[in-house]
Amino acid sequence: MYAPGAALESEDELVAEFAVSKATIRQAVGVLVERGLVERRQGRGTFVREDAAVHRPHAFVGSFTELIIGTDDMSFREFSVEHDVPFPVNVREALGMQSSSGTALVYRRDLRGEPFAYTVVYLSPAVVELLEPEEIVPFERAHFEMKRGMPITGATQSMSAEIADSLVATNLSIEIGQPVLFSERVVRSELRPVEFIHTWYRGDMFKWQADLSFAWSGTNLTVTVSVDEPSIPAE
Amino acid sequence: MYAPGAALESEDELVAEFAVSKATIRQAVGVLVERGLVERRQGRGTFVREDAAVHRPHAFVGSFTELIIGTDDMSFREFSVEHDVPFPVNVREALGMQSSSGTALVYRRDLRGEPFAYTVVYLSPAVVELLEPEEIVPFERAHFEMKRGMPITGATQSMSAEIADSLVATNLSIEIGQPVLFSERVVRSELRPVEFIHTWYRGDMFKWQADLSFAWSGTNLTVTVSVDEPSIPAE
Repeated sequence: MYAPGAALESEDELVAEFAVSKATIRQAVGVLVERGLVERRQGRGTFVREDAAVHRPHAFVGSFTELIIGTDDMSFREFSVEHDVPFPVNVREALGMQSSSGTALVYRRDLRGEPFAYTVVYLSPAVVELLEPEEIVPFERAHFEMKRGMPITGATQSMSAEIADSLVATNLSIEIGQPVLFSERVVRSELRPVEFIHTWYRGDMFKWQADLSFAWSGTNLTVTVSVDEPSIPAE
Repeated sequence: MYAPGAALESEDELVAEFAVSKATIRQAVGVLVERGLVERRQGRGTFVREDAAVHRPHAFVGSFTELIIGTDDMSFREFSVEHDVPFPVNVREALGMQSSSGTALVYRRDLRGEPFAYTVVYLSPAVVELLEPEEIVPFERAHFEMKRGMPITGATQSMSAEIADSLVATNLSIEIGQPVLFSERVVRSELRPVEFIHTWYRGDMFKWQADLSFAWSGTNLTVTVSVDEPSIPAE
């Protein structure tokens, strides 16, 4: 480990130490420079950036339970309920909607005071009818849905990588073009879709993590996600 | 296979054809709608989207079994075994290594002829000793490890969003700055780490997807990933 401000060895020293070509060393140092971990100073060499220590590539490593319910480190920055929001076509189709617009819940979450995730929840019209207006809130709506006989039981979850467009960049206080982890989650109650959730997480602040179990049958491998998900009181 | 624009059978016809409940058919069609493959047209039925064939925001939607073993659509473009590769500090620490460099397996996978994933496997020195040089190959090395008494049993898996640097961009034939999904996987045999795998997937070609199950205990929610992972023969 190098301390912030420390000098890297010269290219020749690194070549000798790692017994690789100078081209390989240059490429490796180039990656560190691109990632903002070291900087080249003209005529002086390559140094670990002073801000490399405070640069936290992934401030939150978590499970889906923690993401859905939140953790003590997370707070809702603001949320709003918006009506007559145009729903994307795939959202309308997934929710089996006739009309082209509906009610959405929009919120941002902070992680230790910094914008971390931006979420748009497209609500099924059936859920909007079921709940009182004041019950349409970020997490506790699930309790009200349960109380009124429509408990959420499962979801289809996906994750992909995107770069921030102007809407996402503004809401996450990052530059356009920065990496964001995009989560789509269609939440169901029994067989009925309840809501379609889009969340963009700051790529440099969030990493999803799980344990995998490998089961062999001869030379056939089956992989399952075996997360020990904590049950978090959601009071 | 349905052609773009083709109509799906009615729910009742599908129920009869597959001998399952209408609820199951609805759920199955709902999944196709969510994935943008079919669309419901008011009062007319369900149709394969005209853009279903060409529209591939995410050409591969898959499970970890499929990712690890590969699918028929995937091929290894090239692979190489490199010695004396400098290992990143966190990799060395995870593998419990004394030396700063080791043996790595580097490969690219194509999805239907297009570069899709770029992988660097940092091998534990214990595994390099265990295997014959010709056994250090992309997937089948797991079979040789099993045969020699070190079967892989589990892993810690994480996913995050990054933008392509020059190394990744070159290997995936994309522009620097394009989104990539970055996977880190530490593979273990019993309690011993076997390898540390870095993979960068083209953000516009890959989406990871899983089913979640929600378990309620009072108002406490626990979320588990309940993927029905296919077991794929790994000949």
